[in-house]
Amino acid sequence: MKKVINAPQNVVAEMIQGMTLAFPNHVRKIDTADVIVRTDAKKGKVALISGGGSGHEPSHAGFVGYGMLDAGVCGAVFTSPTPDAVFEAIKAVKTDAGVLLIIKNYTGDVMNFEMAMEMAEAEGIKVDKVVIDDDVAVQNSTYTVGRRGIAGTVLVHKIAGAKAETGASLAEVKAAAEKVIANVRSMGMALTPCIIPEAGKPGFTLGDNEMEVGLGIHGEPGVKREEIKPADAIVDELAGKILADMPLGAGEEVALLINGLGSTPLMELFIVNKKVNEILTGKGIKIYKTWVGEYMTAIEMAGFSISVLKLDAELKELLDAKADTPAYKA
Amino acid sequence: MKKVINAPQNVVAEMIQGMTLAFPNHVRKIDTADVIVRTDAKKGKVALISGGGSGHEPSHAGFVGYGMLDAGVCGAVFTSPTPDAVFEAIKAVKTDAGVLLIIKNYTGDVMNFEMAMEMAEAEGIKVDKVVIDDDVAVQNSTYTVGRRGIAGTVLVHKIAGAKAETGASLAEVKAAAEKVIANVRSMGMALTPCIIPEAGKPGFTLGDNEMEVGLGIHGEPGVKREEIKPADAIVDELAGKILADMPLGAGEEVALLINGLGSTPLMELFIVNKKVNEILTGKGIKIYKTWVGEYMTAIEMAGFSISVLKLDAELKELLDAKADTPAYKA
Repeated sequence: MKKVINAPQNVVAEMIQGMTLAFPNHVRKIDTADVIVRTDAKKGKVALISGGGSGHEPSHAGFVGYGMLDAGVCGAVFTSPTPDAVFEAIKAVKTDAGVLLIIKNYTGDVMNFEMAMEMAEAEGIKVDKVVIDDDVAVQNSTYTVGRRGIAGTVLVHKIAGAKAETGASLAEVKAAAEKVIANVRSMGMALTPCIIPEAGKPGFTLGDNEMEVGLGIHGEPGVKREEIKPADAIVDELAGKILADMPLGAGEEVALLINGLGSTPLMELFIVNKKVNEILTGKGIKIYKTWVGEYMTAIEMAGFSISVLKLDAELKELLDAKADTPAYKA
Repeated sequence: MKKVINAPQNVVAEMIQGMTLAFPNHVRKIDTADVIVRTDAKKGKVALISGGGSGHEPSHAGFVGYGMLDAGVCGAVFTSPTPDAVFEAIKAVKTDAGVLLIIKNYTGDVMNFEMAMEMAEAEGIKVDKVVIDDDVAVQNSTYTVGRRGIAGTVLVHKIAGAKAETGASLAEVKAAAEKVIANVRSMGMALTPCIIPEAGKPGFTLGDNEMEVGLGIHGEPGVKREEIKPADAIVDELAGKILADMPLGAGEEVALLINGLGSTPLMELFIVNKKVNEILTGKGIKIYKTWVGEYMTAIEMAGFSISVLKLDAELKELLDAKADTPAYKA
């Protein structure tokens, strides 16, 4: 295992320390759990909380800050945070306007966030939730009933976060998040596995000339394994599957997120973006905004995902709104 | 070779297309060469140009935009851009205030940028240059006489770019860049090599349990190869070498850049940052600002570098100034 770490069991704690030391003006850790919160928390607005297992950095704690999240809950690597940790996050950032939990659709995450929600409601805290299932690759998977939540989650952080900053109600912020969820589709592929530090070896293997299409962000099986193809052919396949699931007509506008899974260079992500652009503009679809980089990773996995979000006037405005977080500024 | 690419000889051209498609409001390619320029070019201010071989993304073209560079010249992978390409960049962004070339200290880069400078001067264009040699690892290397220029270069982009936006003269912008160069020191290490697409195989190899300390961003040999150590021990060694080269007293302030070389997860970079913080604050040194992420990569190399920049009031102000580029916003 080639990693720059100390004891494998300490990676999350040390990562959090290193992160809060790097961005003291943006974030701090609460005392009671592995939860990162905004230093400039604003009373009165709806508070947004996301989280999940660690290993997807900068998701989610990297998006804590103005215009996105109020708290990020950091579980052990690829392990859902406990209900207690999520509950501590809720207590740390709750406001009279309410709290929205933004959950990726994995069985453990959904269960633990829902338990925390019940704990909070029992104390009279106003909480609601949304569940993201943007991955069109497979219907069910190792850790999921229904579709998995992957990189499209970051677009929910951005848009729901911007809505919350406007002073919108909990129902309105939830509606904005639900609108993103209804209109975003993603799919990914991987060239290499990744290694959970405490496991010390990859959870699966891929041959020297092999890739897996539709692989999940924890290495869950995808659609198929096959020989590596040229970038354009890979993009054709992923974009084809996404577009088959979200009919988009000429003249419609989208946001694109070309997301690296950990060790895919920007050079390759830009090559992917070029082909995605050709496919979409070839159909008369307008690309309003593009994000290219690492937003939802799988530790050091090589590969990428494409997310397409169909936009309307409200989503465009919220996508463009100011954000100031460690990992995203606009 | 596991890469998401099409024909290896087309990676730079396709990357540039994908990049300009992603950030059309920030950058465009000029017709005559692989040069990325600002779309909002401002007449009257000193124009800043950097560049080098591709494969270090987001450097340098990712830093073209308000408050940083006016042009980034993209050579073939790990290959200096031609004098002609640099000259085209100069002609594309020159202003009456002059042009400053920001060059990393590699023999090919220095030679080709200097030739372009002569070509420009012959046409009456006002041009000056700075050469960055922040890497304390080795005195000379495969491609360099003297120290190599590595991630500290991005801090030169930021600070000289901010100075240029103030309307400062060419001499003043150069002086700001020189102040950074005099006060920044860097050193890196690697766990894995990287593969130049057209080569198809790594330029060197490292054993399964081996790392190289002081390795360059093209895989140039470092100080030594040894068994992988815990992160804290690695950081102790790199920071020790940096601090030995730049005496810093208690109470002095620095900016830190913890730079990933391509496939090192943010998790590990934060663990590195934690230890660097402990070392510096243990000496009473104040950390004014920290950058953690991928700024100067070596394609998909695993590893990182630490850069320390000693600050004064002017450098702090310029470091904090507004920037709006594809890869860095402040």
